Amino acid sequence: MLRNDTLDQWDREAFFHPSTHLAQHAQGEAPNRVIRTASGCHIEDRDGNRFLDAFAGLYCVNVGYGRMEIAEAIAEQAKELAYYHAYVGHGTEASITLAKMILDRAPDGMSKVYFGLGGSDANETNVKLIWYYNNILGRPEKKKIISRWRGYHGSGLMTGSLTGLELFHKKFDLPLAQVIHTEAPYYLRRPDREMSEAAFVDHLVAELEALIEREGADTIAAFIGEPLMGTGGIVPPPEGYWPAIQKVLDRHDILLVADEVVTGFGRLGTMFGSDHYGIRPDLITIAKGLTSAYAPLSGSIVGDKMWKVLEQGTDENGPIGHGWTYSAHPIGAAAGIANLRLIDDLNLVENAGRVGRMFNEALQDAVGGHAHVAEVRGEGMIAAVEFQKDVAAGTFFDPGDKIGAQVAGKLLEHGVIGRAMPQGDILGFAPPFSLTESEAAEVADKTAKAVAAVLG
Amino acid sequence: MLRNDTLDQWDREAFFHPSTHLAQHAQGEAPNRVIRTASGCHIEDRDGNRFLDAFAGLYCVNVGYGRMEIAEAIAEQAKELAYYHAYVGHGTEASITLAKMILDRAPDGMSKVYFGLGGSDANETNVKLIWYYNNILGRPEKKKIISRWRGYHGSGLMTGSLTGLELFHKKFDLPLAQVIHTEAPYYLRRPDREMSEAAFVDHLVAELEALIEREGADTIAAFIGEPLMGTGGIVPPPEGYWPAIQKVLDRHDILLVADEVVTGFGRLGTMFGSDHYGIRPDLITIAKGLTSAYAPLSGSIVGDKMWKVLEQGTDENGPIGHGWTYSAHPIGAAAGIANLRLIDDLNLVENAGRVGRMFNEALQDAVGGHAHVAEVRGEGMIAAVEFQKDVAAGTFFDPGDKIGAQVAGKLLEHGVIGRAMPQGDILGFAPPFSLTESEAAEVADKTAKAVAAVLG
Repeated sequence: MLRNDTLDQWDREAFFHPSTHLAQHAQGEAPNRVIRTASGCHIEDRDGNRFLDAFAGLYCVNVGYGRMEIAEAIAEQAKELAYYHAYVGHGTEASITLAKMILDRAPDGMSKVYFGLGGSDANETNVKLIWYYNNILGRPEKKKIISRWRGYHGSGLMTGSLTGLELFHKKFDLPLAQVIHTEAPYYLRRPDREMSEAAFVDHLVAELEALIEREGADTIAAFIGEPLMGTGGIVPPPEGYWPAIQKVLDRHDILLVADEVVTGFGRLGTMFGSDHYGIRPDLITIAKGLTSAYAPLSGSIVGDKMWKVLEQGTDENGPIGHGWTYSAHPIGAAAGIANLRLIDDLNLVENAGRVGRMFNEALQDAVGGHAHVAEVRGEGMIAAVEFQKDVAAGTFFDPGDKIGAQVAGKLLEHGVIGRAMPQGDILGFAPPFSLTESEAAEVADKTAKAVAAVLG
Repeated sequence: MLRNDTLDQWDREAFFHPSTHLAQHAQGEAPNRVIRTASGCHIEDRDGNRFLDAFAGLYCVNVGYGRMEIAEAIAEQAKELAYYHAYVGHGTEASITLAKMILDRAPDGMSKVYFGLGGSDANETNVKLIWYYNNILGRPEKKKIISRWRGYHGSGLMTGSLTGLELFHKKFDLPLAQVIHTEAPYYLRRPDREMSEAAFVDHLVAELEALIEREGADTIAAFIGEPLMGTGGIVPPPEGYWPAIQKVLDRHDILLVADEVVTGFGRLGTMFGSDHYGIRPDLITIAKGLTSAYAPLSGSIVGDKMWKVLEQGTDENGPIGHGWTYSAHPIGAAAGIANLRLIDDLNLVENAGRVGRMFNEALQDAVGGHAHVAEVRGEGMIAAVEFQKDVAAGTFFDPGDKIGAQVAGKLLEHGVIGRAMPQGDILGFAPPFSLTESEAAEVADKTAKAVAAVLG
């Protein structure tokens, strides 16, 4: 077995980590951590430290760690057929079966599944399909994509442009010109604190209408949004938001992409966030929860309306010029099937709703009354605590104080992993759906301790 | 077990295949094929048909199918720890070890490995890093990327733009404006048939110089190329091409990205194509051969010069805003380690060179003298046969005749998989490195039969 100090040296010398301070990591000035094993909601590192992972990796290990049903399915597939491609009508029993299982669970009106690897490439596929769609319909000018500030849709050039967070734009020349942003449905950060939730929705609709008017509806192809905003702050939409937005989009013949990478397959206590909020999407992005991250797999679920035009496109132009070598990879497909079966067998969507509600309430009880807690918010098995300097006045801390990161750091000392969201002082939680009531209580309790340690 | 007709129905109803005629597939008018198992160089479908896969999937199953060493490594990793993320300095023994193993094998001057999922996203990462690099150096205008016509670098919006093939541009509004193309180093298609190989290289250098002059060197960030062109036609570079190109790039301070998705880890009979042709790249793209496709994994190997600037970037701007959830996925890392060990243990790079040479000679013997064969070309374990209407006059068949596809179809009837390359009448081969001499002879023999059946 390799020694920890050897691994540490190789890690510093050879490994370029995502979202990391590269200089500090390479020079050994920032902590690293080598994860060894995991089970249920707990992970363990090579130094013997054990943590309750209340963020399920990156809100992706939805069924919890160490599920032997999924590991066995992966092992069997690896032995029988680790790989064959899906180009030109090729498939495997696993990939075909999973496509069928996804459609069986998807909202009404969905037609086909294109498989990718991660959420970023699935949204890349979506934009390509949207552009293709409007070219086939003879509307070459209708190409811009509206996203929301604070939305998260990936980290590529186009998908990082869709993402509405400064960290993913700065020094990368993003967003690209084809992407325009509209206001986030973030009630805590509404422009006027006197605004009711209904008035805020009216305001967001008016902002969207004004943007469409300014750009011209004939230049706008699609609107993309997460049913519940994730990395931007874990922000459930205000009441009535989605039906109001959908109405605007329908009127202007603008496609709607529901990015369900976080919400798909149960996170909100329902199979899809679109069903949860009454969204009727034309495309749905899926990833994380599709395999609970046991193997990389993502997908674009294409609705009937678009599919019909894509068929027309290949009738007119021949085979579609889009493909990834690892589209519908058998290992990912096998993991996906086992994962979706496990979710059914153990009623994990129901558990996410029930224990998630309890968890949200426990968090509210634990820290909701704290002088610097502006809001405890969430839905199903996802929750956030947002901190303000002066809650009555609605003023925020100086970002340089890194209050969110400090609280997350303290919480980690107590053995619990939450996530300091990247923009704002927001402590996020998205535990596995299998979280128990006592684990939920433990996270809430330790969060209170961490908040007290940092903010008194 | 599912019945074949059930799978067929689900496949037509639910599955959106890459690079496929969508309408014909959905309506059951195009054949589909469900692959069940595979071993060595052979795959088997659910109808009991068996094929010698002389394209190794999509030139990716380099060690051959059914390698239990890799399957077992995947299985063990799935049971111990199927997933944890690599953000903010997190890793696993597998991902750190693989990063080290890659650098040990990489050309000189390479510093770190960023892990992705497939070749497309790795090139997406490369472009982001290149833009970041020039922003940190205070050269915000130096951003364009030069690629070659017929290069293949992926199928996303940016990476499909880098790709210089019409199929991947048409109806997708590509290439994006930041990408410019220069001439392919394709000697058979040289502008003047009287040109010697050396004169052709001079011509390519002059074309590149003129392009740089026209655009302005201070607007051009990088040049990307496959050491040996793959999907564009399997085209080895003319003698002296790379050193001459490298000289131009160095003079204008233009970074060089070697896309080694096809050539990396042994395809040419050497570990990297860069070493094979004396290229000194700043970034290397790796994917397929890294895991032999047993699990999705790609990477960007960052050279010392760039890494130093990236470190400066995070010193000045904090953690880098780039990351995929599945970066350095443990299953992919475990597959990569087992795959690279197997390549070493079985001397597969040497085998690729030796049997590959034999295979190229056998193909030359079998069809090189045919009246419609313009060229049999290759290097190591990759080869192509290109057809022309009149070889003496150098004229090509009408693309509508689909000669390449017809020959590939005939070959399939003989139980051998080659690939009709997408642009031109080119039959491509890229068998597993474990191809035996008798399998090489079989492919050559059946290719001759297929050519004769189509072209007399």
